[in-house]
Order: sequence, then C-alpha cells, then structure tokens
Amino acid sequence: MINAPQGRAVQHTAGPAVSTAVESAMRRALALAAQGPSHGPNPRVGCVLLDPGGRPVAEGFHRGAGTPHAEAAALAAARSHGIDPRGTTAVVTLEPCAHHGRTGPCADALIDAGVATVHVAVSDPNPVAAGGAATLRAAGIEVTTGTLADEGEELLRHWLHAVRTGRPYVTLKLATSLDGRVAAADGTSRWITGPQARAHAHTIRAQVDAIAVGTGTALTDDPSLTARTIDGGLFEHQPLRVVLGRTAVPDDARLRGPGGALLHLPEHDLAVVLGRLAEREVRHLLVEGGPTLATALLATDAVDEVHAYVAPVLLGSGPTVVGDLGITTIGAAARFATHDVTRLGDDVLMVARRTQPVTNSLTNPQPAYPRQNGRPSRPTTEEI
Amino acid sequence: MINAPQGRAVQHTAGPAVSTAVESAMRRALALAAQGPSHGPNPRVGCVLLDPGGRPVAEGFHRGAGTPHAEAAALAAARSHGIDPRGTTAVVTLEPCAHHGRTGPCADALIDAGVATVHVAVSDPNPVAAGGAATLRAAGIEVTTGTLADEGEELLRHWLHAVRTGRPYVTLKLATSLDGRVAAADGTSRWITGPQARAHAHTIRAQVDAIAVGTGTALTDDPSLTARTIDGGLFEHQPLRVVLGRTAVPDDARLRGPGGALLHLPEHDLAVVLGRLAEREVRHLLVEGGPTLATALLATDAVDEVHAYVAPVLLGSGPTVVGDLGITTIGAAARFATHDVTRLGDDVLMVARRTQPVTNSLTNPQPAYPRQNGRPSRPTTEEI
Ligand SMILES: NC(=O)c1ccc[n+]([C@@H]2O[C@H](COP(=O)([O-])OP(=O)(O)OC[C@H]3O[C@@H](n4cnc5c(N)ncnc54)[C@H](OP(=O)(O)O)[C@@H]3O)[C@@H](O)[C@H]2O)c1
Ligand SMILES: NC(=O)c1ccc[n+]([C@@H]2O[C@H](COP(=O)([O-])OP(=O)(O)OC[C@H]3O[C@@H](n4cnc5c(N)ncnc54)[C@H](OP(=O)(O)O)[C@@H]3O)[C@@H](O)[C@H]2O)c1
Repeated sequence: MINAPQGRAVQHTAGPAVSTAVESAMRRALALAAQGPSHGPNPRVGCVLLDPGGRPVAEGFHRGAGTPHAEAAALAAARSHGIDPRGTTAVVTLEPCAHHGRTGPCADALIDAGVATVHVAVSDPNPVAAGGAATLRAAGIEVTTGTLADEGEELLRHWLHAVRTGRPYVTLKLATSLDGRVAAADGTSRWITGPQARAHAHTIRAQVDAIAVGTGTALTDDPSLTARTIDGGLFEHQPLRVVLGRTAVPDDARLRGPGGALLHLPEHDLAVVLGRLAEREVRHLLVEGGPTLATALLATDAVDEVHAYVAPVLLGSGPTVVGDLGITTIGAAARFATHDVTRLGDDVLMVARRTQPVTNSLTNPQPAYPRQNGRPSRPTTEEI
Repeated sequence: MINAPQGRAVQHTAGPAVSTAVESAMRRALALAAQGPSHGPNPRVGCVLLDPGGRPVAEGFHRGAGTPHAEAAALAAARSHGIDPRGTTAVVTLEPCAHHGRTGPCADALIDAGVATVHVAVSDPNPVAAGGAATLRAAGIEVTTGTLADEGEELLRHWLHAVRTGRPYVTLKLATSLDGRVAAADGTSRWITGPQARAHAHTIRAQVDAIAVGTGTALTDDPSLTARTIDGGLFEHQPLRVVLGRTAVPDDARLRGPGGALLHLPEHDLAVVLGRLAEREVRHLLVEGGPTLATALLATDAVDEVHAYVAPVLLGSGPTVVGDLGITTIGAAARFATHDVTRLGDDVLMVARRTQPVTNSLTNPQPAYPRQNGRPSRPTTEEI
C-alpha cells in the first residue's frame, strides 16, 4: 500500500485480484444503497468492508434521515459479528462526509475504526459535507475515488443534481396519444393510457419528494396526487403535493384528502417555485401538470427528464401536450436523449433526459429554446 | 394412421413423439417460408418432409413468382438426395393449392409422390386455389390443419388480409415528435427521427409491394421513395411508387428517377385507389404520406397497421401527424393494439394493429370513427 501525499488523488495501484474484489464490493455497495429510500433529503449510500485479502466481512446502507450513515452501519455490523474493522478496506458509494449533521462525520468514524483504505464511487459535491477524502488522507488512509463512478452517478442522479444546481431535479410526466394529445376535443382524457402505465406512474410517485400540477389540472381533474398500489392502497411514502397558480384550491378538493402535505404556491415564476421547493428539501420533483405548466417549464429549460407514456391511439383533435415553445424550425427543437424505453401493456414509456448542461435560465430567462441550433434544417441534397 | 372421412377435418391423433416431430418440422417450415420474399403476389410457403419415424428428410420453400412451390421444391430435394417420398409426411405452412397456376397443383404433386399424411398451418382462403385439403383427402391422404396456426397467420398476415378482403394491407408510417408533430412551424421536418429509425424504415420499404404518398408530400419533400441500404445503395426489390392526388408530379421529381415504377392516381376515393392497387397485385401498401392522406385513411378505417417512429423531441407548434378525424370524446378514439415496441437509437418504433375487424367502410364510407364508443368517458368516481 502507498501512503497518499496529503490532498492529492491517488491512482488505483492494487493488483488485479484486489481491484476485482473492490469492484465487486462496489457493485454490492451500490445494490445496498439502492435499498435505501430514493426520496428524502439524504443521498442513498452503501458500504462494504473488505478484509486485507479482499473478502467482504460486513456491509451497511443508509435507511433514511435520522438513521445511521452507511459507513457507521457497516462498522456496527462488523463489530456485532465480533470483527475488528482495523486494517479493513471500506468500499463506499459516496465520499464519506466530514460534517457534523444529525450523526457524527463518517470520515472520523472510519479513522477511529482504523480502516486502512477507502474506495469511493462519487465525490460529495455538497459544500457542507465535502472534505471527507482530505480528512481521511490527512489521517494516512489511502483514498481512491471514481470506482464505478458512472453507476454511482446514476444511482444518485436526482440528489447530485439538486446539490450541484441548488434546485430540484424536474421530471415531466406526459401521457399522450400518438398524435401528442392529452385529451379529446371535449376535454375527456381518462384514460388515454392503460392500467399498466398508470400503475407504473404510481411507483414513480412513491419515489419522488413532491408532485406538482397547475391549478388548471387541479380544478379540471380533481386529482388526489397520492402514490397508490395496484389495489388502491397508499404507499408508505407520500410525496408533497404542490399546486402552482393563483386560483384557489377548493375546500373539497381530493388534494386535501389523505396523502402527502399540500403546498399551494400562487406563483408563476418557476425560479421562485423551484427555490421554494429546494428550501423544503425537495430533491426530485415530478410534474404532472397540464400543457400550460409543461410549456412554461420547457420554455425555461427547467425539465431534466421526460417520462412520456404514449398510447397507440390517434385523436386528431383536442389539446396537445405542449403549447407554443417559440420553436420555429426543426433544428431548434427541444431534443432529449433517450435513456430507457419500456413497454407497459399497449403503451410505451420513453424516459429521456436533458442533452444540454443545466443553464442559469431559471434566473436569466431566455426567450426561446437555443438548443442544437447548429443542426442543418432541410438539407435539399438528402433524399427521403 | 386414420383415413380421414372425405371432406371433414381430422383432429390430430398422433402420439406425443410424432406430434412433437410435426411441430418442430412446422417451425422449420415457417422459418423456411420466411426466407421467401415478403412482397409479390404469392404467399410465402415452406415445406418439410418427414419419414415415418418423424425424421426430416427434405425441405423446400417458395422463392417467388415463377419458381417452384414449396411442396414441389421439397419433393425435388428428396429425389435429388435419392429419397423416395412415398409414405412421408408433408408439413406445409399453407394448404397445398388445387389450381393450375404458373405451376401445376401442389395437391396433385403430393398425391403422385405417394405422400401419406399432410399437416397444414393455415388453410388457403383464396377461392381460386382452395380445395387442396379436400383433393388430398379424396385421394386417401390424412390431412390435419391448424398446426401452429397463429404463427402461420402471422407469417402470411399481409397476404391473407389481401386475399380475404380483396384490398391491400395498409401500413401507415408516421414519424413524429413526442407532441405528435411531423414538422416544425416553418415546415422543416428533416430529421425528426434519427439514422437508425430511417434505416429501419428503408428495410420496411424493401418488404412491401408499394409505397404511397399524397401530392403534398411529393411536391414538398421531393422524395425518391426507394428502398435503400445504409450505404445509400438500392435494395434488390423496389416497391411500386404511388402518388395520390390531382396535382401533377413534376418532370424532374426524384420519384421519376431510379427505383420502382411510378403510378400516379389522380384520385381521392380511397376505395377506388385500393381497388386499383389490388388489381396490380399489391398485397401490402406502405403509406408514407403527410397528414392529409393519413387523416383520410384513418377516417375511412383503411389503416390495418401503424408504424409510429417517435423521437424524444418536443416542438410545441407545427403540423400534427393527423388532422380532424371527427373524434370528440376519448372513448371514440382510433385505438390500435400494440404488437411490438423497438428502440431505434434515440427513437422508438411502435407497431400497432387494428383492433376491430375490417369493415366495409371503404365501400360504404362512415362519417366518424365508431370504435370503442362503449368505453366510459370521464368517470368521476375514479381518482388520478
Ligand atoms: N395527459 C396528461 O399527461 C395530462 C396531465 C395533466 C393534465 N392533463 C389535462 O390538461 C388539462 C389542464 O390543462 P392546463 O394547461 O390548464 O393545466 P395546468 O398546466 O396544470 O394548469 C395551468 C395553470 O397553472 C398555473 N400556472 C402555474 N405556473 C404557471 C406558469 N409558469 N405559467 C403559466 N401558468 C402557470 C396557471 O394558473 P392560475 O391562473 O391559477 O395562476 C395556469 O392556468 C386537463 O384537461 C387535464 O385533464 C393531462
Ligand atoms: N413525418 C412524417 O411522417 C411525414 C411523412 C410525410 C410527409 N410529411 C410532411 O407532411 C407535409 C405534407 O403534408 P400533406 O398533408 O400536404 O401531404 P400528403 O397527405 O402526402 O398530400 C396531400 C394531398 O394528397 C392528395 N390526396 C390524395 N388522396 C386524398 C384524399 N383521400 N383526401 C385528401 N387528399 C388526398 C391531395 O392532393 P391533390 O390536391 O393534388 O388532389 C392532397 O392535397 C410535408 O411538410 C412533409 O414534410 C411528414
């Protein structure tokens, strides 16, 4: 082992056997982390302890706010099995924290336990918690970062986004016909998509911190915006219910019934809205609003991910899923990158993500969508 | 073996070993049939000959108009290997024909060869060719129909539809944004979908008998409507190119360049159009027209299958993929049944098929889409 010069990143220098053991331990740590709740203010973290021969001896993960961090859980698990963590290698999905939050700093716990080496997937971008790696190195512990970094980033996608940008990750849900309509000409929209698509959408509700609609949807559809199981029961976690717009929410609205807390923001400025939600520790916001809200979010480049549930239906008339975005030519389209495609009964779910880095457009609104305007429009030399 | 009473269907009574051998021979016959061309006036047929122990001894398939039928090919293959087909079991995907076409009737060839038993997947609905099973039975051959019938129907889908209804199977291709737009506000549409979706669409062109567009698309896009490989070369088979509408096709149109023959039908009556195409032995028509033609086809219930290539793009304005269909409420939507979902790069292809039996609406046009009007619209007791 190499003692790292303080404050500098160490390349991974262990032999192939150890590196394989670390990688498989990291996969396990990621799987453990994924068992934690995806909602809530804290990141999902998993930790595996390896003995000097690379064999896993204990593991732990964070189960949500107020419970031990993953590193503490793994150290406690080792001790409860009569194993002294001294000299072990800690494999952790996120850089151990260096701050005193609801629990003591994890970096100190690893140092006190005599851990020899630490492998990290993702560095902590949180200015309050950062510095864990430096603290560990200062104590003579070898720290390697970036092991399965992509998988770690994917697991912590929403949380990392919120910490890095200071605003929630915004997932825009759309349920449309093949011709992009959200309702028929008479306003009827139940149900464009089928039961499997609706059940899936409820599992997403159960994973987010908050769901937002505009007052248009709140009044027209009288939704409950609860996360429900297939048999109609409520999931344990219920997201905050957010209604945006100046119109009052009626006293007898389903939104006031059983479910998450109701937050009515009589506000159109989306920078203000997202700021208010960030203050309430919302990391992941699901927007299920109608075309008006969807258009406003797209026009301010606030959408990080689109969940488009598309039904094999053609309507020919009725409101379209988004209104005017100021896009006049195909090269300027709001283009997302497909992450995943899933068939749900007769419907298909396309999950697509932003292709451009987050801009500061929420504080400096831009008039139109400037994306990909370098693409050629209508090349006459190409054949159809 | 049981000698079948003439003219009555025989249940499959062979033991499990023989029935397994017949089923796997039928799978092979279906796979052989699929090697034949999917375009052209003749059905794709495959044939496997089994010896009395259930072992395959020869096989053949139909390679296109003017070449031997599958049964003749299999019998010839047996003889060329010095095998006497007497007493064999013929496993054929389509009921052997009983008519004198470009080749002699297959039923006679099987009788002359002394085949003992015949298993068929799909009965021939063609009034000209039908009667093969009866001819065989009259000659004392045991005939079983319906072995892997669903797979046989799927393989012959377009051909069976054309024979049963007297008009081509119509596949409507759509390439849209997530909000159902086929072009941006300024008319630019290249390229909403990406290269993988376009390459896929070309492989479909190479499988159909004809491609149609309206004069709107012909003039706006100046398409060539050829089936091209990824490197831009032409596939061996080029579909007939059909332009519908009264406007003239310019002399310098790409449609007059290398590719399939050009047929301009200055006609809006779709029953007449499909009748004219049926006369030209078009079994499968791919429509790549614009919104006007797509709407007209949907409004007359002429669409048998939809190929929707959907891109993860939002436009917010521009022409939508279909115009007014006279649908006012969600229960009356033109609803298709999803057959297959394929991701193609960033895009998704939804293949969806008609849910209702073919109506005679092409001869008796109906004002609106009467489908599924039994579905409840807007049930207020259901929660969102
Ligand atoms: N298929 C689907 O995916 C889906 C989903 C949801 C709804 N829908 C359908 O959509 C229809 C409702 O459409 P909608 O567009 O009225 O609903 P909406 O977008 O949910 O609500 C629009 C309202 O939101 C408020 N608002 C908040 N922030 C805004 C901003 N930045 N810009 C503009 N307005 C803002 C405004 O209300 P104030 O005037 O009160 O300020 C506005 O009138 C219903 O028919 C519903 O069934 C379909
Ligand atoms: N993304 C896609 O999937 C896609 C595909 C194709 C085209 N497009 C776009 O669509 C636009 C062209 O749209 P379009 O609607 O004009 O094209 P279109 O549907 O191909 O052509 C319309 C013309 O077809 C003729 N026609 C034939 N039968 C008809 C019937 N039964 N009813 C009505 N008209 C009939 C009429 O021409 P006459 O007046 O001459 O009789 C009509 O004007 C272009 O911008 C093109 O780029 C997009």
